[in-house]
Amino acid sequence: MKKIINTADTFVKDTMEGIICAYGDKVKLLKDDFRILLSNYPTKDGKVGIVTAGGSGHLPMFLGYVGKGLLDGCAVGEVFASPSSEKMADMIRACDRGNGVLCLFGNYNGDLFNFRMACDEVEFDDIKTKQVIVRDDVASANKENEKKRRGVAGMMYAFKVAGAAADQMMSLEDVAKVTERALQNIRSMGVALSPCIVPKVGRPTFTIEEDEIEIGMGIHGEAGIEVKKMMTADEIAEILMKNIMDDMSLISGDEVSVMINGLGGTPLEEQLIVYRKVYEILNKKGISVVMPHIGEYATSMEMAGLSITIFKLDEELKTLLKAPAETPFYTNLNK
Amino acid sequence: MKKIINTADTFVKDTMEGIICAYGDKVKLLKDDFRILLSNYPTKDGKVGIVTAGGSGHLPMFLGYVGKGLLDGCAVGEVFASPSSEKMADMIRACDRGNGVLCLFGNYNGDLFNFRMACDEVEFDDIKTKQVIVRDDVASANKENEKKRRGVAGMMYAFKVAGAAADQMMSLEDVAKVTERALQNIRSMGVALSPCIVPKVGRPTFTIEEDEIEIGMGIHGEAGIEVKKMMTADEIAEILMKNIMDDMSLISGDEVSVMINGLGGTPLEEQLIVYRKVYEILNKKGISVVMPHIGEYATSMEMAGLSITIFKLDEELKTLLKAPAETPFYTNLNK
Repeated sequence: MKKIINTADTFVKDTMEGIICAYGDKVKLLKDDFRILLSNYPTKDGKVGIVTAGGSGHLPMFLGYVGKGLLDGCAVGEVFASPSSEKMADMIRACDRGNGVLCLFGNYNGDLFNFRMACDEVEFDDIKTKQVIVRDDVASANKENEKKRRGVAGMMYAFKVAGAAADQMMSLEDVAKVTERALQNIRSMGVALSPCIVPKVGRPTFTIEEDEIEIGMGIHGEAGIEVKKMMTADEIAEILMKNIMDDMSLISGDEVSVMINGLGGTPLEEQLIVYRKVYEILNKKGISVVMPHIGEYATSMEMAGLSITIFKLDEELKTLLKAPAETPFYTNLNK
Repeated sequence: MKKIINTADTFVKDTMEGIICAYGDKVKLLKDDFRILLSNYPTKDGKVGIVTAGGSGHLPMFLGYVGKGLLDGCAVGEVFASPSSEKMADMIRACDRGNGVLCLFGNYNGDLFNFRMACDEVEFDDIKTKQVIVRDDVASANKENEKKRRGVAGMMYAFKVAGAAADQMMSLEDVAKVTERALQNIRSMGVALSPCIVPKVGRPTFTIEEDEIEIGMGIHGEAGIEVKKMMTADEIAEILMKNIMDDMSLISGDEVSVMINGLGGTPLEEQLIVYRKVYEILNKKGISVVMPHIGEYATSMEMAGLSITIFKLDEELKTLLKAPAETPFYTNLNK
């Protein structure tokens, strides 16, 4: 296992200490608990709190979005494992400013179960919470079973919308409502070329032949739709876009934001080559692109591959997407 | 060869088209020439032009730094190959606003030779130029032969200083002088864990055993100082920092900026774990860190590994480092 780490046991702690050494003016731990990161940016009194939680190993996903105009807090577990409900409850308490906290997270059993417990627990402290669950991965279940779909890179767009809505001093109910509406307009699908290694496990999460790719694979190596022979960037873009567009209503004149998300081991050049084709596909249909996001937004450590996310916008969602945001890992200048 | 590309022949063109599809409001091609990218941000009249050139395959290095407060133009060649002197000359002409152009580039034979020819050529058009050459890689030659050293990730700091100095409306001579001074205070060294594949070649640039790493390897796979058995992140940080610090004068009370640069295939978690140790080493010596840069700044496509760059600051260099800058791939908010 060739990873630049100290020990598998200290992987999460060492990462978190690195974040604090680097960005301790912008983010902070909750009472030295290296499983809970809080924003240290100035915040408006009474703003609804926005929090998430999830496994480690997906940076910048989760921890990287704690900051201004995005998340107030994030609890992390071990690599690819949910943090405990106690950590989530501590975080929710720390992020409540009297008007409640939105818990916004991916559709994974551990996170679902633990957030439910945490929300029950903080009710005793008279903290209002709402849970909004991200299920943007069209490859993880068909349309009839969309409640079973997993949350992947589209989660970042949901954080952005919720964070901006909270910054506008919307109520908890309204923040939840507009975030749900955003999610109805967000679809993702990915392709994996190589596996990653969970430090404590020490072996690849899956195996794949040297000339094969897995279409629709999840960000933890969950099985995709099919294994195919290696193909061109344009062909990959066409397959992913067909699956995404078949699942949502997009017509000429629509505006979307496009995210090309590198899973970790795929170079920016390749992400841009895929974006070129996605842009062409949308352009031919009369759909225009606002604020493309091309880079690494939700990774699986060193896994090679990428995902495409389409976020269909209306005026309100566009305003929320464009609202300024700043974290050590994400900057949105509203330009 | 498992790369998300169309053909090896169109790799650079497709990448550049992706950049234009995504960021065509911020950067542009020079007369549809997909080897020359120019800034499309508003610029002050008479500002000294800052340009670079180099091979493709290092994004965001080179192309990604074209924008506001950084580069005015960049010419790129094929993967890991210099562009022609004609392209460089065309770019220099496009970036001159009457007060000359600084050519700032890494110490590689092709770039050296072609920039010299290009500068000679534009002299006939009465365009003043100066050449500043980046040689930050301490592993590539010993101190006695520092003129032979290659330019690696520290080049990004040099672009930042030169871009900010030009934005302050310094003369060409003064921009060159302060950039040279910055470079005297910039040192880098890297480690590689796995090779990359040049698309047109189709096979790895070098081979390395499953339990080995190469200390001091260059960003094109140039041989390093030694091949070692895999070690911990802390040990890697110590070796790289020892080599860097032995090569420059750093004392208690100094301020530095630290760059941890992922070479492509190494996750952000691992970069942060290395930063944690670098911070500790500096902290113990009474050296403080300003504006850490942790992420991918100069890659070798999918190569796994990272480099450390130390940039020793004084008041002027700190002001130039902190000056606002914005490109599609780099944002500096001066905070």
